[in-house]
Amino acid sequence: MSETGQPLSSNVPGARFPRLESGRLVFRFHAPDAKSVRLPAPGDSLGTEPVEFARDADGFWTGAIDAPGPGFHYYRLQIDGLLVNDPGSQAFSGYGLAASGVEIPEPGNTEAEFRDVPHGDVRSRWYHSTVTGDWRQLLIYTPPGYDAASSRRYPALYLQHGSGEDETSWSRQGRAGVILDNLLAASAAEPMLIVMGSGYPAPPAEPGTPPSPERIQQVIDGFGDVLLRDVVPLVDGLYRTKADRDNRALAGLSMGGRQALAVGLRSLEQFAWLGGLSPAVWVDGTAGRGWTVGPDWVQESLKASGEFRPRHVFLTAGSLETQFVTAIEDLAGMFTEVGIEHTSYVSPGTSHEWLTWRRSLVRLAPLLFR
Amino acid sequence: MSETGQPLSSNVPGARFPRLESGRLVFRFHAPDAKSVRLPAPGDSLGTEPVEFARDADGFWTGAIDAPGPGFHYYRLQIDGLLVNDPGSQAFSGYGLAASGVEIPEPGNTEAEFRDVPHGDVRSRWYHSTVTGDWRQLLIYTPPGYDAASSRRYPALYLQHGSGEDETSWSRQGRAGVILDNLLAASAAEPMLIVMGSGYPAPPAEPGTPPSPERIQQVIDGFGDVLLRDVVPLVDGLYRTKADRDNRALAGLSMGGRQALAVGLRSLEQFAWLGGLSPAVWVDGTAGRGWTVGPDWVQESLKASGEFRPRHVFLTAGSLETQFVTAIEDLAGMFTEVGIEHTSYVSPGTSHEWLTWRRSLVRLAPLLFR
Repeated sequence: MSETGQPLSSNVPGARFPRLESGRLVFRFHAPDAKSVRLPAPGDSLGTEPVEFARDADGFWTGAIDAPGPGFHYYRLQIDGLLVNDPGSQAFSGYGLAASGVEIPEPGNTEAEFRDVPHGDVRSRWYHSTVTGDWRQLLIYTPPGYDAASSRRYPALYLQHGSGEDETSWSRQGRAGVILDNLLAASAAEPMLIVMGSGYPAPPAEPGTPPSPERIQQVIDGFGDVLLRDVVPLVDGLYRTKADRDNRALAGLSMGGRQALAVGLRSLEQFAWLGGLSPAVWVDGTAGRGWTVGPDWVQESLKASGEFRPRHVFLTAGSLETQFVTAIEDLAGMFTEVGIEHTSYVSPGTSHEWLTWRRSLVRLAPLLFR
Repeated sequence: MSETGQPLSSNVPGARFPRLESGRLVFRFHAPDAKSVRLPAPGDSLGTEPVEFARDADGFWTGAIDAPGPGFHYYRLQIDGLLVNDPGSQAFSGYGLAASGVEIPEPGNTEAEFRDVPHGDVRSRWYHSTVTGDWRQLLIYTPPGYDAASSRRYPALYLQHGSGEDETSWSRQGRAGVILDNLLAASAAEPMLIVMGSGYPAPPAEPGTPPSPERIQQVIDGFGDVLLRDVVPLVDGLYRTKADRDNRALAGLSMGGRQALAVGLRSLEQFAWLGGLSPAVWVDGTAGRGWTVGPDWVQESLKASGEFRPRHVFLTAGSLETQFVTAIEDLAGMFTEVGIEHTSYVSPGTSHEWLTWRRSLVRLAPLLFR
């Protein structure tokens, strides 16, 4: 079969499919015994109606959908009703498992693309948690020049993933290090560390099980315990940080946005800068049992922080995820009411997806530590 | 259903299966529309005959096999004839794709286990290859104390993965950093960097396609070009290495063992220490078209290195992979013939698998740079 177009950068090395061909995303794989193949699977976010694939005489199945928008999207193949990974794709932590994904380039936009600029390292560091008793991984972005500037100290952004993801998600799906490399090359942000740890203080619920309100509260509070008792002291001990509130930011996406705001607002002696990207914070009645808060949530949360106030709060959502746009509008109102400086950004034409959060990081990082 | 035993550390967070129960490895997952499930799939190395799983009324399939030996093993589920990932497992680069895997603990042996000792970082560094024209990832282990000892310089071990794997394999499946942390805590090795890059100078062949002899030669030669023109200069420029042959080692497993020996023997002005772990180097007629060499291979390869000779060559295989035991016996004979010091190690009771290579690293690292 003749092939045009390009394999995706999210493919495993050597996999020719999935590939982009003239605005279509083409999938192909070998499954000689399968009876039917559909994509996208239910719940996936590729943005089109399911398409039935066709089988050729050699047992290869081929199908194409209109390419989704730029950025990263999780997906699975549906083969004879079973949701499975595409053998051509790398695996990415999402959906609470190791899922397939497609990386769709955005013509003309290289914010999150590798460029010929100085690059930082993303370090993997394992540690034994005094809170949970297990071994946990942190990923730490150190900016270009960190090794050579052997006495310089840096501020740190603590950046949290969403539900069903893990500490690798911001680096791989979010391309956080690449985004910072590019911002720093343009002198558009202060050189900083980015610390990415797991948002789960205990194993998450089985995929597909909606968590109870009690469990949600445990995930928020337990995350705070791990962050404050394990992660921040470890990072300040191992890396050359400026170890004070003015030089620490805490932000996250979705579940992680709720965690960042909830833990940050009551720990302002530790963090002066906060960010909620598509944060799961809904004012009474809007949505999401367990994630719902009262109209005085910000004011109430501040009480634990005494006289400390955030220097800036950054709120973002995608324009198509209207529930989250409402959430940040409600939050913006609450921050205004207590006189806290804040900025909102709505990513045009994006939903609850990584392009929203990449764009948010591009706009959040330049505001920090200035 | 009642559950005893332990989920595996190779599971995704929260997944209760696969789990070890009294010497059995129990699998369970939801596939209500499936007609039949078998494990292991053909070609997998879990070491037992395939077992048919049983379906319960809720659409969950459960099955158990005798637990394989300790260490890491790739696997896939076979559902209605289709080879798929286990949703409970993390994904690991193997088989040329993102495969499922099980990590089986070895009672009483903590060589490759996290312990309460100082830990190094494993850094991810992306670079643009002048040889291949694409962006590539290196993983670099820096030992405990590297950051604090800001003027100390270190030797470096370049360590290559096998066929179908990638630059993450030695760190994740091989636990190279954990092994070094433990050796260093016991003062059993010199503090060193470990540099882990891709062994594929061009995309690998499609999984299942046996490479031609020409392609094998390209993979060996192209790897050498990337290593010598890109990787070594980059590492010497970015990290505090001792940048000379006496402080550089080159080793690899299987395909990577062949690459390390072939490239190392002709580049001895760059590398004084070589290691072949289950190396794909067979003397005429033994096996493997394309991987076969003549009885003077070592002598011939040395010619390009002029007067330089290896300070030590380390050869290993698992006792159950007899073809590779023969390979290292033949190699040992060739090294003896040319008067090059070498050590052989045969891992008892292991095959072409990660426990062989972890044990090999435990024994290789202490010999280096002394």
